[in-house]
Amino acid sequence: MNANDFADRLTATAAETEALLERLLDGAALPGETARPGRLLDAMRHGALGGGKKLRPFLVAESAALFGVARAGALLAGCALELLHCYSLVHDDLPAMDNDDLRRGKPTVHKAFDEATAILAGDALLTLAFDIMAREAVHADAQVRIALVGALARASGIGGMAGGQMLDLAAEGRFEVKRALSESEIVTLQAMKTGALIRFACDAGAILGQADTPARASIARYGAAIGQAFQIADDLLDVEGDSAALGKAAGKDVTAGKATLVAILGVKGARAKLDQLIAEADAALAPFGAKADTLRATARFIAERRN
Amino acid sequence: MNANDFADRLTATAAETEALLERLLDGAALPGETARPGRLLDAMRHGALGGGKKLRPFLVAESAALFGVARAGALLAGCALELLHCYSLVHDDLPAMDNDDLRRGKPTVHKAFDEATAILAGDALLTLAFDIMAREAVHADAQVRIALVGALARASGIGGMAGGQMLDLAAEGRFEVKRALSESEIVTLQAMKTGALIRFACDAGAILGQADTPARASIARYGAAIGQAFQIADDLLDVEGDSAALGKAAGKDVTAGKATLVAILGVKGARAKLDQLIAEADAALAPFGAKADTLRATARFIAERRN
Repeated sequence: MNANDFADRLTATAAETEALLERLLDGAALPGETARPGRLLDAMRHGALGGGKKLRPFLVAESAALFGVARAGALLAGCALELLHCYSLVHDDLPAMDNDDLRRGKPTVHKAFDEATAILAGDALLTLAFDIMAREAVHADAQVRIALVGALARASGIGGMAGGQMLDLAAEGRFEVKRALSESEIVTLQAMKTGALIRFACDAGAILGQADTPARASIARYGAAIGQAFQIADDLLDVEGDSAALGKAAGKDVTAGKATLVAILGVKGARAKLDQLIAEADAALAPFGAKADTLRATARFIAERRN
Repeated sequence: MNANDFADRLTATAAETEALLERLLDGAALPGETARPGRLLDAMRHGALGGGKKLRPFLVAESAALFGVARAGALLAGCALELLHCYSLVHDDLPAMDNDDLRRGKPTVHKAFDEATAILAGDALLTLAFDIMAREAVHADAQVRIALVGALARASGIGGMAGGQMLDLAAEGRFEVKRALSESEIVTLQAMKTGALIRFACDAGAILGQADTPARASIARYGAAIGQAFQIADDLLDVEGDSAALGKAAGKDVTAGKATLVAILGVKGARAKLDQLIAEADAALAPFGAKADTLRATARFIAERRN
């Protein structure tokens, strides 16, 4: 698959996901809901719509496609994951956390609204993610949906994404004297903070497809490799990218003395590590043959992206 | 059931719930978790352990008992709900929200730790609630567990608890000029902010017990009545209670000019409304006969509690 075909495919799934998110975030109260307060809905929409590559939903859809899963259910599961990812961005941007004013070229939610609304919007996005993942339209089999809910919670809670953000704040020296993290500490932090959701995205396709154990293990290897690759590419972008293309401030991590593999291995060493991870991702996909070409292209896209 | 027997029963379930929460919040990483960072775990434990009447888990257990549900699963579902309730307290106490320093007689999480840690602890408690509700130990049937997850998400998201908190902040005049809420606006706000989780607690027993439609509707009527009663009793306590018994500042709502039914109906009118709601709760339980005596006693306890 060449880069143009891949870009078209990514863009198409992003558009489908955006349209679906638009419907999921409309103003109509659902059964069991009393009402959807407008200000909170607006803030959730600000945090979740109108931007982003929708890489995680794309991974769910493409991983699911390997196992012949109906696309509609995979896209809905992808939306649940995207909402959860967006909650984490809304909360990470808060003044008490990373204190960012700009996200995807727009004011962050607490800037466009206020802090209390941003906290609640994040909470409600997180909650809506589980609401959606539990819906029958994701998959007819309740066993599949409950497995998705359990895996998503595990990936995003104290032992995954939220815990990773905690480690990241600690690494900045907020709670005790700052010390340099070792390479393995950085790998753990990143495996939690950003890796866990990317691994879940890949795993979700295998869960939806009720894949057998060897296939699920192969997808897990792929997810682990691209999850780590994603973060290294992100850290390289912070060093080499420009703010306009990124839609956020470049060089911020370096200025903050943030613990990254780029800081430890250098740009050249980090690029070599990235190449090695992409080779690992390719190797993990060997059992699936040509069916996995889009996932192979995704790995390359992650390594080479410029924003 | 006399008041002493009821108090013993409530205390016993609270102790069982506390012991179970203690185990759920230990330091061991579970399958799918990388590690549980100590500071985040400590903050979650601070927010979830060592206090509270555990009224919501009690309602889950007693509602489930009506339908002959095994107690262990109901207690675990109750723990999931309690963790979700505790997340809402941690976030509501934040400086950007209600800015409370004291909760259950202890410093709030952001006071004992810091704001970023409190935001993350709330996020991780919310996420852990769904993790736990998805576990097989809650109920062997995945259909039952996914129904619980869906109903819990609906009760606590934009159309329920989180939306109710948004309405409450708006009612304080934070976002536009403050105006007096009507009685029906207050009822809606409270049905979302505090009612939704209490209704869910009751409904959860019926879901666990795979109750038929009429029985589930009866429990829903009971839940709606005690949910509203709970908030009126809370508002009466703010007017009549003392800070030492409450473990938080009394009179705070009055000082803040908070919209409550007590402010609209007066203390006497609010007491009459409370009596009417308890009668409604009793009537809803009629089909269950003597089996529902503990739930009847719970309604009275809610109306008469002093802290």
